[in-house]
Amino acid sequence: MNQPVLTPEQIDDFLKEHFPEAVGFVEIDSVEPGAVTIRLATKPHHLRPGGTISGPTLMALADTAMYFLVLSLVGPVALAVTSNLNINFLRKPTPGTLLAQATLLKRGRQLVVGQVHLRSEGEEAPVAHATVTYALPSTGA
Amino acid sequence: MNQPVLTPEQIDDFLKEHFPEAVGFVEIDSVEPGAVTIRLATKPHHLRPGGTISGPTLMALADTAMYFLVLSLVGPVALAVTSNLNINFLRKPTPGTLLAQATLLKRGRQLVVGQVHLRSEGEEAPVAHATVTYALPSTGA
Amino acid sequence: MNQPVLTPEQIDDFLKEHFPEAVGFVEIDSVEPGAVTIRLATKPHHLRPGGTISGPTLMALADTAMYFLVLSLVGPVALAVTSNLNINFLRKPTPGTLLAQATLLKRGRQLVVGQVHLRSEGEEAPVAHATVTYALPSTGA
Amino acid sequence: MNQPVLTPEQIDDFLKEHFPEAVGFVEIDSVEPGAVTIRLATKPHHLRPGGTISGPTLMALADTAMYFLVLSLVGPVALAVTSNLNINFLRKPTPGTLLAQATLLKRGRQLVVGQVHLRSEGEEAPVAHATVTYALPSTGA
Repeated sequence: MNQPVLTPEQIDDFLKEHFPEAVGFVEIDSVEPGAVTIRLATKPHHLRPGGTISGPTLMALADTAMYFLVLSLVGPVALAVTSNLNINFLRKPTPGTLLAQATLLKRGRQLVVGQVHLRSEGEEAPVAHATVTYALPSTGA
Repeated sequence: MNQPVLTPEQIDDFLKEHFPEAVGFVEIDSVEPGAVTIRLATKPHHLRPGGTISGPTLMALADTAMYFLVLSLVGPVALAVTSNLNINFLRKPTPGTLLAQATLLKRGRQLVVGQVHLRSEGEEAPVAHATVTYALPSTGA
Repeated sequence: MNQPVLTPEQIDDFLKEHFPEAVGFVEIDSVEPGAVTIRLATKPHHLRPGGTISGPTLMALADTAMYFLVLSLVGPVALAVTSNLNINFLRKPTPGTLLAQATLLKRGRQLVVGQVHLRSEGEEAPVAHATVTYALPSTGA
Repeated sequence: MNQPVLTPEQIDDFLKEHFPEAVGFVEIDSVEPGAVTIRLATKPHHLRPGGTISGPTLMALADTAMYFLVLSLVGPVALAVTSNLNINFLRKPTPGTLLAQATLLKRGRQLVVGQVHLRSEGEEAPVAHATVTYALPSTGA
């Protein structure tokens, strides 16, 4: 029922067409029913003094993971927009690769709600946890 | 009681020293007791197709406004970190200048909580509203 | 544009008809354009040891204030439901009367977003602050 | 490392002593490392017209599950208080028994963060999902 309707390659192609400036920010690890995992190889401009990763980078990563989950479920809908994002920052991430796994909580006609766990690669404890709601464009005739 | 302990110039100086990569992201409009307003002149990389401003840009702006409010209240504490951010996206912002006003809800010993209204310059209705909590480093001996 | 379409008495009448078990929980102080204020005279079952007011009581109060704001804006819509509530608990409230003021952030076709400040009567500093989203039932033909 | 330090019976005893008015609201299903599950047999005053369960009941349930998780981890600390609660209402719950499972996201010195899934007994899809932060009292000398 939550079978993906897009492959990772199709999501990439969609981004290249509609959000060319976002290409290269992350890579898609996997697209499964109701779950998408992406990865970010952090670069110097994602970092803060002391080598930690900036909060806005983590928020952008959570939002992107959830957007890809929405795309995987509803197809190429450029106009889905974030309506609410709540994030708890839990631990200092270490530089290197960050993984963000978005999982579905509810797919409604108007709203899609999911949660995102962010982890440093190779570690179990999450560095941040977000709950994200996307609003879908109305499909009225 | 919520008198600022830093001027806009002192906040700028602090950033230059501790977060040189953040210099130039925003300008400080005003620092008042319990309130800081900053402005962002949006650039092409802040935009999304159709000319709207990206969600991560708005989240970074809300987080930055709140960080400056914390600095204005507690002084140059590089190690204050965001512990929770909740944002509702309300209207499509128009390109141009965005204003973010952070106002204090509570200053505790461990946590500082505030809200941030984001508006397009010259418009009254907010484009987004955030509630942000910062954790202060412990001051134990 | 955000003129109330219901008076406090009409909101009370609506509650008596649709939510009889909620009658008597709170009183309506005022209904203004885009703002509703309600008051709760705390009773023993709202309290916690030490005399403070329980968190669930504050959450119920915030949700009710926002629901009345929605009713004041869209008319008697029993089926409006909370979709998201985010609350920060800021200070220990003192027993006695609590005021909750809901103010509008956005009225959309599908979602109404507002914020609620909760205060002890006679005090300025908020004891809690909530952001609440209500979903309106679809009005399809 | 997240081994419970209290059994379900000890949590019940603690409640009877410190929160006698809360006794009988819920039952504890299980206490495991980093996870507590409680159940609520809904009664008429928890319901809304149409037979659904009120939002404030769900919020109280989420807050209680997280409080029991905190107790299970840090021991009988009456003064732990909720500092933030964010809840998404996902589906209309059916009357009957509701289960709330709180799982740990982070246990810090000052803050404990967890998430709570609320489900109707016998159903898989969550009716609500909350993220909750508790602040622990300082232990300074």
